Parts: sequence; C-alpha cells; structure tokens
Amino acid sequence: MKASHAHLVTLKEAPADAEIVSQKLMIRAGMIRRIAAGIYTWLPLGLRSLRKVEAIVREEMNRAGAVEVLLPVVQPAELWQESGRWEHYGPELLRFKDRHQRDFVLGPTHEEVITELVRRDVKSYRQLPRHFYQIQTKFRDEIRPRFGVMRAREFIMKDGYSFHADFTDLEREYRNMYDTYTRIFTRLGLKFRAVAADTGSIGGTGSHEFHVIADTGEDDIAYCPASDYAANVELAEALPPAGPRPAPGEPLVKVHTPGVKTIADLVDFLKIPIERTVKAIVVEGEDGAPVLLLLRGDHELNEIKAQKLPGIKNPLTFADEAAIRAAFGAGPGSLGPVGFTGRIIADRTVAKMADFVIGANEDEHHYTGANLGRDFPEPEVADLRNVVAGDPSPDGKGTLEICRGIEVGHIFQLRTKYSEAMHCTFLDAEGRERPMEMGCYGIGVSRILGAAIEQNHDERGILWPAAIAPFEVVICPIGAAKSPMVAEAAEAIYRDCLAAGLDVVLDDRNERPGAMFADWELVGVPWRVVVSERGLAAGQYEVQHRREREARTLPIGDVVAELAASIAAEKRAPR
Amino acid sequence: MKASHAHLVTLKEAPADAEIVSQKLMIRAGMIRRIAAGIYTWLPLGLRSLRKVEAIVREEMNRAGAVEVLLPVVQPAELWQESGRWEHYGPELLRFKDRHQRDFVLGPTHEEVITELVRRDVKSYRQLPRHFYQIQTKFRDEIRPRFGVMRAREFIMKDGYSFHADFTDLEREYRNMYDTYTRIFTRLGLKFRAVAADTGSIGGTGSHEFHVIADTGEDDIAYCPASDYAANVELAEALPPAGPRPAPGEPLVKVHTPGVKTIADLVDFLKIPIERTVKAIVVEGEDGAPVLLLLRGDHELNEIKAQKLPGIKNPLTFADEAAIRAAFGAGPGSLGPVGFTGRIIADRTVAKMADFVIGANEDEHHYTGANLGRDFPEPEVADLRNVVAGDPSPDGKGTLEICRGIEVGHIFQLRTKYSEAMHCTFLDAEGRERPMEMGCYGIGVSRILGAAIEQNHDERGILWPAAIAPFEVVICPIGAAKSPMVAEAAEAIYRDCLAAGLDVVLDDRNERPGAMFADWELVGVPWRVVVSERGLAAGQYEVQHRREREARTLPIGDVVAELAASIAAEKRAPR
Repeated sequence: MKASHAHLVTLKEAPADAEIVSQKLMIRAGMIRRIAAGIYTWLPLGLRSLRKVEAIVREEMNRAGAVEVLLPVVQPAELWQESGRWEHYGPELLRFKDRHQRDFVLGPTHEEVITELVRRDVKSYRQLPRHFYQIQTKFRDEIRPRFGVMRAREFIMKDGYSFHADFTDLEREYRNMYDTYTRIFTRLGLKFRAVAADTGSIGGTGSHEFHVIADTGEDDIAYCPASDYAANVELAEALPPAGPRPAPGEPLVKVHTPGVKTIADLVDFLKIPIERTVKAIVVEGEDGAPVLLLLRGDHELNEIKAQKLPGIKNPLTFADEAAIRAAFGAGPGSLGPVGFTGRIIADRTVAKMADFVIGANEDEHHYTGANLGRDFPEPEVADLRNVVAGDPSPDGKGTLEICRGIEVGHIFQLRTKYSEAMHCTFLDAEGRERPMEMGCYGIGVSRILGAAIEQNHDERGILWPAAIAPFEVVICPIGAAKSPMVAEAAEAIYRDCLAAGLDVVLDDRNERPGAMFADWELVGVPWRVVVSERGLAAGQYEVQHRREREARTLPIGDVVAELAASIAAEKRAPR
Repeated sequence: MKASHAHLVTLKEAPADAEIVSQKLMIRAGMIRRIAAGIYTWLPLGLRSLRKVEAIVREEMNRAGAVEVLLPVVQPAELWQESGRWEHYGPELLRFKDRHQRDFVLGPTHEEVITELVRRDVKSYRQLPRHFYQIQTKFRDEIRPRFGVMRAREFIMKDGYSFHADFTDLEREYRNMYDTYTRIFTRLGLKFRAVAADTGSIGGTGSHEFHVIADTGEDDIAYCPASDYAANVELAEALPPAGPRPAPGEPLVKVHTPGVKTIADLVDFLKIPIERTVKAIVVEGEDGAPVLLLLRGDHELNEIKAQKLPGIKNPLTFADEAAIRAAFGAGPGSLGPVGFTGRIIADRTVAKMADFVIGANEDEHHYTGANLGRDFPEPEVADLRNVVAGDPSPDGKGTLEICRGIEVGHIFQLRTKYSEAMHCTFLDAEGRERPMEMGCYGIGVSRILGAAIEQNHDERGILWPAAIAPFEVVICPIGAAKSPMVAEAAEAIYRDCLAAGLDVVLDDRNERPGAMFADWELVGVPWRVVVSERGLAAGQYEVQHRREREARTLPIGDVVAELAASIAAEKRAPR
C-alpha cells in the first residue's frame, strides 16, 4: 500500500482524556478514533493490525478443531431469562426494547445463544464433541469506560463454546485450548503468562487467564521463573515458612506507644524491623461475634482467602469501632490476642513467629516479646495473606516473583451450568438423557492491540511485534519529489517487497525526512528502508529495525532477501 | 474439511414460518438458524458462503482504491441529531439509552459516523478524495421481518462513503463504483442488472440499484434487452406512442351499462378490446379541487409520476366518493371528461387515442366514440403510467421487457446533504472553505446469499455459483465403513483436491448413498465425486455437476485437474 492511500493521520498530541500509553499512541498514530465514551472507529492502520490478530486467532482455532460460526449481536431476552442471567447480570448488560416492546440485549457474551443452537441441532452422543467459535463485536456497558480499546464498551472478541458428553472430554478440550492459546499468544509475539484462576496447576482447575505482561497491567501476578506456575496474587497460595517455630526468648512486656496508630508508626516508634510486628484485624463471624485475624505487619490480608474460611460472615465484614471497643476494650490501632477470649486465626507466617510486637488491647499500648501458646492460646492457623516476591512457589520449584499483567484471554470450564438451566441435553450410548458438559474460551481481540502496545513502546511510539504490525516494512525515499531516480528506486524496491510477500508501505507523501521518520516510528513499523541519492550512488540502502539504535547499510540487491529472512525469523521467535 | 467436522445438520422440512424458497433452503441445508424474528445465527456452512461473498467484495473494493475501516455498531444520538435523521428516520431506527441515560442508536447505516470522522481528520483538498468502506453488522428494526436473510433485522452490509472536492470527482468515483459493482456481481456468478433509480442512463443520474434477477423478486424492473437500459418500473419513462393521433371516426354515443363498475366489466359488457377504453381517476389538486387523470384501460397509474406534477396535492390524495359525486354527478365507475370543467390530465398514450370508451358522468352509463378536443377540451398531457412489456425503451434502442429483481446493491450521490448539515468542510486550493461532495455505496452482503438462492435452485435444493458455494467439491465414498480401499481412496483424492487449492469436503459420516447425495444436493455443492469399489476396479470415479443430469466417469488420475479447470472456468464465466 502507498501511504497516500493508507489515510495516515498522525497527531502531535493525544487528546486530554487519553489516560494510558496505548490509548495515547493508538490515537496519535491514527489507528483509532473515539466516537463516544468507550466506542471507537478503527482507521485503516488500526484495522490492519486488528485483522492480523483475527487471522492468527482464526488459524489456530481452526487448527485446534473448532468450527467458526457467527452469532447475532442482538439477542432476545427470553434466552437470558431462561439461563437466569437476565436477573443476575448487572447494568453492564445493555437491555432495550424493539419497536414491538419486546426485550432484547446487546450481547456481551453468547453462552445462551450457542446453547439454544446446540440444544436444537445436537441430540446424540454421536454428534459430540462440538466446539463453535466466532470473532465478533460485543458490547458491555461499562460504568466508566476508559483506557481506549483496553476497556471499551464496544469491542471485538473471539468467543468459543465447547460441548461434551462427559467431563473427561471437556478436560481434554480444555487442555487443547490451553495449548492453542499458548500458540496464539506466542505467534502474536507477546510476552505472556497463563495464570491459574485458583490453585495454579492446569489439571482440573477449571479456569485460566492469559495475561500479557506489562508494567502498566491492572492485575498482580505471582509467577515462578523456574516453572510454569503463575496465579493472580489474590489466588496464589502462601506456603508456611519452612522449619519449626523458634522458642520464645523474650518476656511479654507492655510498652506505652503514644500516638501509634499504624504498623508504620509502631516500627518508627520502637525502631524494630517490620517483620517483628503482627497486626490484628477484626472481622465478623457468621454469628456476628468478632473474629481476630493475625498477620505479619508487612503482609496484606487476602480477603478472598479469609472469606472462604468456615464460620466467617459472607460477604467478609470488618467489625466497626464500637464492636471492637466492646470486645477488646481498645481501638483498632492497639488490638491483640492477649486476653481476648474469642476466636483467633493466625496466618501461617505468624504461626512460625516468636517474640513479636502486637497491640495490648489498651489504647496507645503494645506488647513486645509476645508468643503464641505462651501468652495466649494456640490459635487456628490458615493462609490469610497475599503472596509477596520471594515467597516459595506453591509448586515447590523455586521462589515467586510478582509482575503486572493485562488479561487478554480466559478459558473456563462451565460444566453444566447453562446446559442444565436451558435443558441442553443429549442421549448417551445407553439412551439416557444427560446435560452436556460445556467449556468456554475467550480472547479479547481488540484488547490485545492495547496490551501489545503497553508491553512494546518507547518514547517515540509503538514497537509492534512483526506479526501484528500494520505493515512489516516502510520504504522511505529521501527527496523523491526532486529526484526521479530516488522515486523510481523506491517504487522498485516497494514492488520487490510486494513480490516477496512482505507487507510493505511506500511513503509517497513527499514529507521531509524528519517528519516522515517520526510518523513511522510513532506507528511502529518494524523495518524501515531509506532510499536516497547518496545510497543509490553507493549501491546500498539503509535498513533499520525499530528496536535498534543504528541503521545498517546493505547492498541494494540484498535488502529484500535480508528483510524477508529477518521478518520470518522474528515471527518464529519474537524479539 | 470433513463433513463430520462441518456441523452438517440438514432438515427434511423447513419450519412452518419460512415463507420463501431461499429461507426454506438455507434453514434446511443447515446454513442459518433463526434466533428471533429477523435475527439469525450463521452456521458453519452458511458462514463459509458469507465469507466468500465478503472476500470478493473486499478484493474488488480494495482494487478500486477504497480503504477499509471499521465503524462502531453503537452510535451516539448526537450525530443523528446533527444530521437531522434522529427526527426523520422512522421506527426502523432502533434507539436506546445506556446506563447513564444517554441516547444511542444501533447503526442501520453510517453516514453520520463517517462524516464525523472525516471532518475531524481531513482538512485540505490535498487529502481528497477519500473513500472508506466497511463490512459490518447492521440493524434495522423492520416492522415485519421476513424472508430469512432477505429482510432480516440484523444483517451484514458493505457500506462505503466517498468524499470529494467537487462534483466532477464524485461523478468519477460514482462511475468507478458502478464498474466495481458490476465486477463484484459478475464474480459472484449472479445474473443481475444495474437499475437506474431515475432516468435510466448512468451519466448524472445520482442513483443506481443493482438487482439480482429472480422470478421471486420484490421489484419490477423494466429493461431493454438490446441495451444497458434498466429502471424500476415505477421510474421508467413511458414514451408517447409514435405517430400522430388518429382523426375521430365515430360519433359520441351514450350507452347504458348496467352493473358495470370496472374496466373489466366494461370490456365484458361491450365486447371491445381493453385498449379501446380509458379510465378516469380523480385526485386532489393543491387547492383541494378535483383533478381528473385519464389512462388507457389496461395501464396502471404511476403514483410517483402523478405526484411530481405541478399543482397536485402532496402526498397524492385520491378524491373520496362524496367529492367525486359533487364534481361529476356520478360515482367512480362512470366518470369521464365530457362536461367536466375542472383540470384534466391525459396520459401520453391517451393523448394519441381516438374513438375510445369512457364514463359518461352518469351512473351506469358510458360514452363510445369519445375524442379529445372534439368532445371535451384538449387536456394537459403527461407521463402518468407504469411502463409495460413492449413499450419503446426510453433510450431509443428497442422495446422494454419486464422482469423481477432483488435489490442487493445501491450506489448513490449524496452530494452535500450530510457535509452541509454536519459541517464537513475542507479548504480548497484557493483557501476557501467548502463542503465536501459525498457518495455512498452499499451492498447487502448477507442478502446476496438469499438472492443467489432465489435465482439458483431446483426441487432438490440449492444450485450455488462456484464462487460462493460453501464447498466447491464434495467427495462421496460409497460403503467406506466396510471398504478400507474406498475409505483410503476417498482420503487420497480429498488430499489431492486440497493440494490443488480446491475447496473440498469429504463426507466421512458413513451415510447411505441416497441420504448422502440428498444432503449435498440440498446444500448445493457444485461438484460431486463418487468413490466406489466398482469405480476403483475400473480405475475411474463418477464426477457430476449439480446442474447436470448425468454423471461422467473420469480416469482417477484426471479427476483433480478436470475439476480444477472446470471450477476455474465457471468462476470466470458463471453458468
């Protein structure tokens, strides 16, 4: 394509409401334009990248044995009433009435529609398994759409749904999709991790998220560099520290701690390492009685883990100050287990501590030298906290690191939730009617472009992986308006690139070199070929990769072959 | 692909609510499934054909210089308020509120969104012309959706919008699109006509529809077999008959016509050819006074033409019986011009008639031997009627035929309607601000499949043109379950077809031959290859085209080359 034709409209500044780097760069590079909050037009450059993502997703889904369909955007409310989601889905589900006052929704997801389809057309175990997928526009009425295509209201997803005669076959397909998603994100050229949504091992977990790793990601991920283990920080298990609890070495001493309200205050006041402190948090039990949770001072309570403990009120409810004073005789800054007669649950790390500092249940007083079993009864012990970097990996293969990620894919074992609610059944080999086992598998196709940029950019613009760049190569002629020789040479290498199957754009806009280079660095085309009179005189062109600081000069005859080889290599093994 | 994988679910009967043949066949062949009124899921077979249509449209649009974008399905009401269509568009425009009570529409078309885009990004004549197109889901809330994908509420369109510095350039692009659409429908393998929406010649008409010719079409099209002339019957000009009006030869005689209410009654009663009768229709003038329209008895009033005459009430209003009796002294079955003192307009054909029969303005009485100028004043003369087969073609190149068509494309010169309403302006070479000239160009991508079937089917099923069939070739092994030799041979030729780039499906379902053949005839795959033990013994396979009654036997080694050549030929010159 020629640049004059590509509708290249770059902007010096991003609009004021653009918040994150991918949003700013996509708008500045002329890939998208905002039409309303969370609703975007895809300009030619953006659509080229989007289509490349779609093509890779489609190829790998087909290779994995899934079959493409196209389900409607507008869905009748009846199906959502049948599944129960008409009631339970929040205001993100956009509901409306047609001209006959019938209720419809704009599809945020398609479990109901696909289940309706399968229950009508699939009756026998002989027709199973089935896996249908689509790549399609979806709508989710986010309360605060932001971050460009990363949290848009209208977006493009690949969503697939599989149907099985039994759980074993669902598990087989789940692993097939785990492998397929791994291939897809690898081919896209992204650094990513498959993150378990619960225990962190693939067998039987029921749910994995695929995250693109980026410092700007919304989710904290705990992973083990020495293994495949990865989990959302909130879901990663914090193992007990190795070894036995040290024996008590200090006496229990009450100290006056005037003005100390927080752990940070306490550490400052007593000049002790934070790892010597224990904090006390009071939540309500199912019976309303206060339950005291103990965590090391530097650890964070994991509310999901606490919530799951037996006898804890659902949803997790923190005791208010009045209840705390009634039970402990002190305010939240000075609480502790000594003398408390209610239920106490200590985090696994606290259970291995000795001689720690903790509140004395008297305002502005703490104990030093506190010890479990000696100064208060041995508490229950549970995993109550978020993991931190340096914690042992739950798979026993090393220590955890923490990174940030952007969720771009999700695979999930739905089991029979929809097939039971909607009577999607089949006759098994013995003629018994049974609900189908279902899985669902989503990829945020448009979101991937935002995530790719969050991971791959510099101060000048985007650094596209070769597989999803709007173009692989840009030909930049210098002074073509005045030099027919340059113009002809640029056309010639442009045609040679096309003939070699490269996705190339020729900048025929007659811009000055500085503006031309800046545009293409902003857009993030991986390879740039500069054609100049000087180069032609020397029989060579300057070739530079967007991630390299220096250009190479190559003999003109070698340029296309070199580019083709480099791009093929980069697609096999992304930089 | 293998049939076991293609989700081939054929039905013996179409659902009771399916009305037309394409709808019945698409459902029976497992191409679509209805989810709600006018809302369909595309199953794998249907989607394959849909994607082939999309690919041809995309290729030709790109070749013509248009650039693909993707505009949002959900559009903010503000843009529609700006263009004025928020007020003027009827209830087909689906309007809804988001969770913040802001107004939105589901896009039935995208003039507003694209104009908003262009006015922001295009400022100078140097950036013009631009032509953006998209292939995308649209929604139109039809009051009575029917006919399957032919008049669905949710459907897929290619819509393109061009922007120009002046009208001359718009005309150039309009002709470019006329040629492009002609290429597209030719490549799709459809019999079609480009139909002028007004005068019938391409220069400066402003609007053409592209119709697939089918007996079941909704629109009557007048065309000239000897030229390119084609127009909607309602818009085709009825030329005056050649030659002068014959001189009067009969006296004016009033006859009693008891029981005669209609022209058919009159012809029966008087035993005269209908071409000797003239019918009288009374409409209201702008001032409310009755205006008498005269048409030959067998001709139909064209209300659009009558409406356009000066001094006629808008919208066209037929006088009621009371007004007619007050003005004429008789009821509608016996009206005529003799003695009427108001405005009279005769159709061009009536103006060339002599000695005709017409109402006498007395109930159950008519005149024979009526003549213009002699028995009543010479009336105004105008083109008032629909053309009929045998009328002279308005381009002077022969006589008209009438056929029925299904509109699948439309090109239109919008001029500055949207650019003026929405201030989409540019600076011309002299620095003056001017509104852009706009054109718009639509193709009903999903509708094309219905239209193709209306044109191409028989009692056994669909007869797909090769270019848009879900598969080009089906391999049907006979008795593969019991004959490993047949199964292996079928696999071999399936792989050979794939290697030759043919779009082939192998029926691996182990159905009986009758059921297998019936399925593929219903689906309409153009070529069938039958692999059997008998054939293998003779070193040959049976090859049959869906439109042929007899199979040919070909040496096994020749089959793939023969298929490839035939399919390529059929794509170049559809059957």
